[in-house]
Amino acid sequence: MRTPTAAAVGDEERLARAALTRVVEPGDEHAGRWLREHGPVGLMERLRARAGIEVPLSGPGERRIEGYRIRAQAALPERDIDAVAVLGGRFVCPGDLEWPTQLDDLGDGRPVGLWLRGGADLRKWALRSVAVVGARACTPYGARIAGSLGSGLAERGWVVVSGAAHGVDGAAHRGALASGGATVAVLACGVDVAYPRSHTGLIGRIAEQGLVVAELPPGAHPTRSRFVLRNRVIAALTRGTVVVEAELRSGSLVTARAAERLGRCTMGVPGPVTSGLSAGVHELLRADAVLVTDADEVVEVVGDIGELAPVRRGPVLARDLLGPAESAILEALPSRGGLDGREVALRAGTTPDEALGRLYELQSLGFVERHGSGWQLARGGQHPSNSRRGGA
Amino acid sequence: MRTPTAAAVGDEERLARAALTRVVEPGDEHAGRWLREHGPVGLMERLRARAGIEVPLSGPGERRIEGYRIRAQAALPERDIDAVAVLGGRFVCPGDLEWPTQLDDLGDGRPVGLWLRGGADLRKWALRSVAVVGARACTPYGARIAGSLGSGLAERGWVVVSGAAHGVDGAAHRGALASGGATVAVLACGVDVAYPRSHTGLIGRIAEQGLVVAELPPGAHPTRSRFVLRNRVIAALTRGTVVVEAELRSGSLVTARAAERLGRCTMGVPGPVTSGLSAGVHELLRADAVLVTDADEVVEVVGDIGELAPVRRGPVLARDLLGPAESAILEALPSRGGLDGREVALRAGTTPDEALGRLYELQSLGFVERHGSGWQLARGGQHPSNSRRGGA
Repeated sequence: MRTPTAAAVGDEERLARAALTRVVEPGDEHAGRWLREHGPVGLMERLRARAGIEVPLSGPGERRIEGYRIRAQAALPERDIDAVAVLGGRFVCPGDLEWPTQLDDLGDGRPVGLWLRGGADLRKWALRSVAVVGARACTPYGARIAGSLGSGLAERGWVVVSGAAHGVDGAAHRGALASGGATVAVLACGVDVAYPRSHTGLIGRIAEQGLVVAELPPGAHPTRSRFVLRNRVIAALTRGTVVVEAELRSGSLVTARAAERLGRCTMGVPGPVTSGLSAGVHELLRADAVLVTDADEVVEVVGDIGELAPVRRGPVLARDLLGPAESAILEALPSRGGLDGREVALRAGTTPDEALGRLYELQSLGFVERHGSGWQLARGGQHPSNSRRGGA
Repeated sequence: MRTPTAAAVGDEERLARAALTRVVEPGDEHAGRWLREHGPVGLMERLRARAGIEVPLSGPGERRIEGYRIRAQAALPERDIDAVAVLGGRFVCPGDLEWPTQLDDLGDGRPVGLWLRGGADLRKWALRSVAVVGARACTPYGARIAGSLGSGLAERGWVVVSGAAHGVDGAAHRGALASGGATVAVLACGVDVAYPRSHTGLIGRIAEQGLVVAELPPGAHPTRSRFVLRNRVIAALTRGTVVVEAELRSGSLVTARAAERLGRCTMGVPGPVTSGLSAGVHELLRADAVLVTDADEVVEVVGDIGELAPVRRGPVLARDLLGPAESAILEALPSRGGLDGREVALRAGTTPDEALGRLYELQSLGFVERHGSGWQLARGGQHPSNSRRGGA
């Protein structure tokens, strides 16, 4: 029996985890405990054992365990990995360098792994990310606010995370995209499924310019509980969650409360008290959430979490440890002044989307700064490795 | 020389204080200190002494002291008291039973006395009062919210205090009046001066059904500083201040911050973040104020101040100590069920406005309760003196 390893993830373990995304529903803490006890390979071995052979799995009833077994026997993880690879995607596991370790705060409810589409490094982007969530059936006011938060946060170098739904989610993603910014869509279905259907174009654009993330394997469709559980990933991935419009007892409030339980910042944008779509936000603001009215105020709040802020206490990566793609982008920046993403791409010999993805990663790590549409090398001595003199 | 007395106020002191309202601008702490040192009679004697006679007044420059002297020599307090009496008004001083002792929290900036119009007892009304303030140039949204807070608070037995200005103030007063409730207008001019002019009818109606209050003597006109200093009286008089709409750096925020300094509750009603008229409120809410969206939430906040809540720790007045007018109203209420204000007036042989004034006083003291439009005897044993069996 293999035990799980915290180091780089081998093929066998990766395949087992990919298979488990077909077996285990998001947030299943029974399965999370089994995973901890037996490791992904050991757990899959137990689940794939033919009926009648005694297996030491305890927790839910035998009937439910039978469900896990049936799904485990049907899982074809190689085929899923290939299907996502065709779309330019990949499967990332705990232990991978790209794994966003913030998700470990979810304990046994941590995703088994994540299916990703998009060129950016999820871990680095998540270091400097904010969730913007809210009502599907938002008002024009909510859509306007979500859009301007999305673009304002992107302009300030923050990654906008949301759920790709109608209403507030879509407006936030579009705002970030429109200002050439970084955005992550966390889906409640497979990364190859466009839900809602009318957001096919938007989700495709996010996969090109940003990242599309899912716990569920390719082809999986959303359900009510998958939406709710998707929200915990949005909450855990980000430094804070802003709720723009939400009715009382809405899913966005679930995300905000999950964020709060995880020690993330929760924020709310107020609206008219006569609007039922602001009532949920106001309820949140009457509890512990911070009232915010624009992107600057959001940045003020999330920038204060010392333990998550990479500039203050995060890992300091020596420039030599950067990958070749990031190094190329860093080399492309002049020693003085800034360039826009398109110019950086041209100099580095890559596409604008690729260049932007790397620039956001470099920003998360403190190597570069964004001022308006221009990117430049970071000043100041917080990262000694971040000096062109020291690096070259 | 007479020293000031904490007991019932004699004629000489009352006249001196009435005169001082012509001499001293609202909130003048130099004068407040002199008053503390010399008493009102002693201070007026010093100020009226002919020039050349040495007087021990220190603080502001001699030129400014000369101003006090000129105004003191010109003051005709009997005439002012008569002028206000013609309107059915009176002059109330510290030491009077009707003096709202909350104002003592203003220290040396405490009003010298208050000119009043209206039949109710200011001290008793203030025990259960909330300020509703906001922008003069409010939006239809602000006016709607202020009106519904005014009526909602009145329906819950709270006295609505505001400044009789255009916009939020006027809407709050009108809301309280419209639901047959109690409201107090604190003016920045004399109680006989209708400012703004277009609120002549409103202020007259408040004087009939509620109370009109001013620090300034009859005939005095408002100035910018008088408006600002009036706000401290509104803040000190009430248990809490609700700001409905306010621009950044507006007078309503001055009231709210004064309330906060005085240990009162500050509350704000949010609005669209796209509205400059909500920006000041949002600023307040991002600091220490409590977000409220309706009258119930306001009552929840102000009802929590144990030290001011008459039902919990306030003075318990034996029923025998009530004045004859209040006793008559109390007698008019049936032992079971409720009556509306008009029926109570009919039974007690008085006017509806008089009856309502007394009912609100009795409510402040815990003798009666209001349920919708009906008034009834308070239940429960908090005030043993409040039992009809015990009283009759």
